Amino acid sequence: MSAPDEPTGAAGLFGPDNLPYGLFTHADAPGHRRIGVRYHDRILDAGAAATALGSPHADLLTRPSLNALMAAGRAAWQAVRAELRDWLTDGAADPYLHPLAGATLHLPFDVADYVDFYASEHHATNLGRLFRPDSAPLLPNWKHLPVGYHGRSGTVVVSGTPVVRPRGQRKPPTDPAPSFGPSRRLDIEAELGFVVGMPSAQGGAGVGLRDFREHVFGVTLLNDWSARDLQGWEGQPLGPHLAKSFATSVSPWITPLDALEAARTAPPARDVPLLPYLDDGADGVEPGGLDLRLTVRLNGHTIAEPPFSAMYWTGAQMLAHMTAGGASLRTGDLYGSGTVSGPDRLTQSGCLQELTWGGAEPVELPDGKRTFLEDGDEVTLSGWAPGPGGERIGLGEVTGRVRPAPAA
Amino acid sequence: MSAPDEPTGAAGLFGPDNLPYGLFTHADAPGHRRIGVRYHDRILDAGAAATALGSPHADLLTRPSLNALMAAGRAAWQAVRAELRDWLTDGAADPYLHPLAGATLHLPFDVADYVDFYASEHHATNLGRLFRPDSAPLLPNWKHLPVGYHGRSGTVVVSGTPVVRPRGQRKPPTDPAPSFGPSRRLDIEAELGFVVGMPSAQGGAGVGLRDFREHVFGVTLLNDWSARDLQGWEGQPLGPHLAKSFATSVSPWITPLDALEAARTAPPARDVPLLPYLDDGADGVEPGGLDLRLTVRLNGHTIAEPPFSAMYWTGAQMLAHMTAGGASLRTGDLYGSGTVSGPDRLTQSGCLQELTWGGAEPVELPDGKRTFLEDGDEVTLSGWAPGPGGERIGLGEVTGRVRPAPAA
Repeated sequence: MSAPDEPTGAAGLFGPDNLPYGLFTHADAPGHRRIGVRYHDRILDAGAAATALGSPHADLLTRPSLNALMAAGRAAWQAVRAELRDWLTDGAADPYLHPLAGATLHLPFDVADYVDFYASEHHATNLGRLFRPDSAPLLPNWKHLPVGYHGRSGTVVVSGTPVVRPRGQRKPPTDPAPSFGPSRRLDIEAELGFVVGMPSAQGGAGVGLRDFREHVFGVTLLNDWSARDLQGWEGQPLGPHLAKSFATSVSPWITPLDALEAARTAPPARDVPLLPYLDDGADGVEPGGLDLRLTVRLNGHTIAEPPFSAMYWTGAQMLAHMTAGGASLRTGDLYGSGTVSGPDRLTQSGCLQELTWGGAEPVELPDGKRTFLEDGDEVTLSGWAPGPGGERIGLGEVTGRVRPAPAA
Repeated sequence: MSAPDEPTGAAGLFGPDNLPYGLFTHADAPGHRRIGVRYHDRILDAGAAATALGSPHADLLTRPSLNALMAAGRAAWQAVRAELRDWLTDGAADPYLHPLAGATLHLPFDVADYVDFYASEHHATNLGRLFRPDSAPLLPNWKHLPVGYHGRSGTVVVSGTPVVRPRGQRKPPTDPAPSFGPSRRLDIEAELGFVVGMPSAQGGAGVGLRDFREHVFGVTLLNDWSARDLQGWEGQPLGPHLAKSFATSVSPWITPLDALEAARTAPPARDVPLLPYLDDGADGVEPGGLDLRLTVRLNGHTIAEPPFSAMYWTGAQMLAHMTAGGASLRTGDLYGSGTVSGPDRLTQSGCLQELTWGGAEPVELPDGKRTFLEDGDEVTLSGWAPGPGGERIGLGEVTGRVRPAPAA
């Protein structure tokens, strides 16, 4: 496996063109959750700065979660971002900066609904080949709509939270009946999560592709931990349940969409004509792809570098589809892209299922081979995007370590 | 179709052995949401009564939702219920009773996660016959675990909320490509919803069958509106999404489990051995079935009377399965039983898909035939259970009228 795509220096990933939002506490006031903005290796107490500096947005920033700011809409997001950038670059914010090392980071928003998509053609094709070797790898609907389903919002956890190996029913094809116990095929899914700020009404016409940026506040790296053995047995006809309900990890940092302007790119060519509500080749629709470079590390060793630019469906298309039927949006809705996998299966796949071809081709690590995750394993997702001046925009890492399943 | 199973008088359904909880406002203070308890054709302002009568539980009852009471646990639920019953039967509550007719009823709790099961063998068998006529109607997993999936909690609405016909991709088998537009096969699903009060921890061993009553606060009738044409095209491989994300209607009344003691009954015989965490034939596990009689009315005419006692999987089994993998419970989690259908398909099925055999055998109504729902149609679910003294325990109705899809 290649060496990790090292950042240009960790501090350089979080400069004035980035400014991701989080929620933090300090040891001196552990119960006082504050909105923080990451700036290099420090964290700005945004509410304290806004109050002291007389910002008209202080009310949005002196809250114990990001939800109020997220609900305020794009004009407010842009105005706050401009203020923060000014304060940080002219030194006015200096008294309100804390060392990142001393802060505890929390889940930065209250998750409303969580939807998970399946938007990588490479991922869907690989899984189709593994699970349905005798038929076409992509199902007939796949290029007509972004396939997605609802996940469990109550088990979305912030980076660093231990992930307990799930138990459930496993039935290998050779067994006559299922057994119950810890998953033997625990996997990761390296994804990008989109965080909804601005709500929309139930029963409406849906959020069109052109309105994506009015509703989506930002993005976060997301690990949708998955138990492949549970999923294979339980998943028909209504989709995954226990295989994915035990934990979904997100970064403590939400990167504003405005920080990813320079990363916008055209998505892959579309092989079938898209219905108008999904047609991002239509006049006036901006390119919805994002040139994000992800890295997946297992126990510190890079095992994959999935390129988000290879995703067939864009975040705007996922949102348009999710709302096309009349579903409302709430502030805090989270939707994941599905596993990010690129064309090179051995170096660009976002899950072990693909990297090890269903366990048949183990990944080599310095501490041994891996097919699926073992207790004690730690997985870290990181990533970056090109910034406006050639520098890199870092995405906040998301990490989690596997703990053993509970005793019977 | 048979005449509706008429109640013994609507007032008789909501006597002192019932006492369902809701949330109401009165025209004199429309912004003041209060916890209400239904008593015959009146509604008790529970917070006002508890405050005036010096209840130690007044704090739980003077809230703008049921969540605090739900989170307080079974001992508190039982103590509050005993107080309410005393106040209502000895007249102390009289000053705090309002006519039901003048109250507006609201969604009584904040929905956390919503999971929908598929627990009726008759329903699953009928759908298997319709959709997979060439293979066994039940999939191999069906009798080993209660199949379920997550739905959209943000579109759970209270009875009376209009239901806008969803739009989405429809692709009949004879069409070469999908089209986008209003669903042509809008259906209902008559279900029972279980409302979780007491939370449980993430990564734990799950809520065993014996602890069901410690966690579940009560039940509600639930209509899981479904767009069959959208579902048929989108649903593979990850299950339903837009087909069921536009609206799920619940009753404004939550019936406490303690009101359903006399309705407890043995579930159907189990055809395959169950794994220990689901084995409700084990020593010390109480019967988990419920003898509830549901009625489905379309534009006022009874079209089905599904018996809940025919459900293969019980609410306790659904909860045990939902949490077996390590998923936490939150106060306000809601899980539906899936369509309640009995053995007589033409009179006991809880959805039009079954009643009309996929649209092939229309239902006759005084205003014409129906295969699936038309704009303007109104569907009402009602139900009752045997009470402790031979009287009936009414379940709060859930109703909704179909509005046309939004213009393109």
